[in-house]
Amino acid sequence: MDSYTLKTIAHIHSNFPEKFGIPRQSGLVEELHADIIFEPEFRNPDTLRGLEDYSHIWLIWGFSESIREDWSPTVRPPRLGGNRRMGVFSTRSPFRPNALGLSCVRLTGIEITSELGPVLHVSGADLMHGTPIFDIKPYLPFVDSHPEASEGFGGSFKDYILKVDCPQKWLELIPECHKSALLAVLAQDPRPSYQHDPDRIYGMKYAGIEVKFHVNGNTLYVDKIEPA
Amino acid sequence: MDSYTLKTIAHIHSNFPEKFGIPRQSGLVEELHADIIFEPEFRNPDTLRGLEDYSHIWLIWGFSESIREDWSPTVRPPRLGGNRRMGVFSTRSPFRPNALGLSCVRLTGIEITSELGPVLHVSGADLMHGTPIFDIKPYLPFVDSHPEASEGFGGSFKDYILKVDCPQKWLELIPECHKSALLAVLAQDPRPSYQHDPDRIYGMKYAGIEVKFHVNGNTLYVDKIEPA
Repeated sequence: MDSYTLKTIAHIHSNFPEKFGIPRQSGLVEELHADIIFEPEFRNPDTLRGLEDYSHIWLIWGFSESIREDWSPTVRPPRLGGNRRMGVFSTRSPFRPNALGLSCVRLTGIEITSELGPVLHVSGADLMHGTPIFDIKPYLPFVDSHPEASEGFGGSFKDYILKVDCPQKWLELIPECHKSALLAVLAQDPRPSYQHDPDRIYGMKYAGIEVKFHVNGNTLYVDKIEPA
Repeated sequence: MDSYTLKTIAHIHSNFPEKFGIPRQSGLVEELHADIIFEPEFRNPDTLRGLEDYSHIWLIWGFSESIREDWSPTVRPPRLGGNRRMGVFSTRSPFRPNALGLSCVRLTGIEITSELGPVLHVSGADLMHGTPIFDIKPYLPFVDSHPEASEGFGGSFKDYILKVDCPQKWLELIPECHKSALLAVLAQDPRPSYQHDPDRIYGMKYAGIEVKFHVNGNTLYVDKIEPA
């Protein structure tokens, strides 16, 4: 078994049309709601029997936008300032020999629709719209939860968030249902951490909105909000 | 991206030559030591830089012995007595659309060998000898650990263990270094749970030994130990 071919069982439908701005791990922004839409072949409610008793599920998915033919033994984690190289297997970087992602998300609902079959509603998802999903497994706390585990360098920035300064006139342009999620995503600091130019304007798309912002010190300043 | 081909990056070297007897989840038997041997293409210590700071790692691997062309929407979890069907995505059954396994194991050491390059020593692994590994990721407790998660039916038997009755003459035939692991594996009840024949003799191979046993009530009786 030198290789194994995966088939896409589902796709995620999320409010992130692009990679930029997606939180670096799942669960960091609970307000991020997304749907899992199964491929026609897998639209069978029986496959999910018993899943409603679990609060969290694992998604194994593909970094569909980050596939490179070559891979590098080391990568530069953004949270380390981009100037330290770490082993690719010591990170969750998308640029790895097999472009697999692993995310724990909260299962908020299972809806049986007439058009798309069963749809899973989840929160905390760090997946771009259209990401292919290869497997769904229940989260089993008695084997998956290790709160005592050492965090390595990956935990060194877990409490890092920016203050978000959003003038009222722009705040009013964010639909109420997307407000708290979008502000929480901005607080996660979407920039590559090795960029520290306080004059640079970034643009981030979320839920049909484009946010222009710049960051100075520990504050993110929203400069403009417009339709994406 | 309807399909994606994974390449094997490593194989596990464990004391389980066969599926029978392997604990149903990772971490249930901490004493189970195994090694991760990389494929020649991936024998580069740089890929692991920083990993030594983590106590736990994720393995994404292939159920190499359980691949079936067809899949069933439901499976019968052994722990539910084998007479209740659950949705395949509500279980961690090997017989799933993509035969991927997910295990959290403890990283007990990283050894740089001249012959095989870097070798990872792990404990708690629920993998058969020779299982292909597709990805290794650090365990990040601040996003992966959810002790409050609902357990569903998968947690209903987490405290279930058998009493193991092993006569002294057989106990003496188990090498000291394998004794506690083997006894802990037996206590996990290797039988398919829907078999309740107290007269049936089972054979389980571990670390070059074959154990013959039967189970009556909550006790597993070791009947014989011999070289596998």
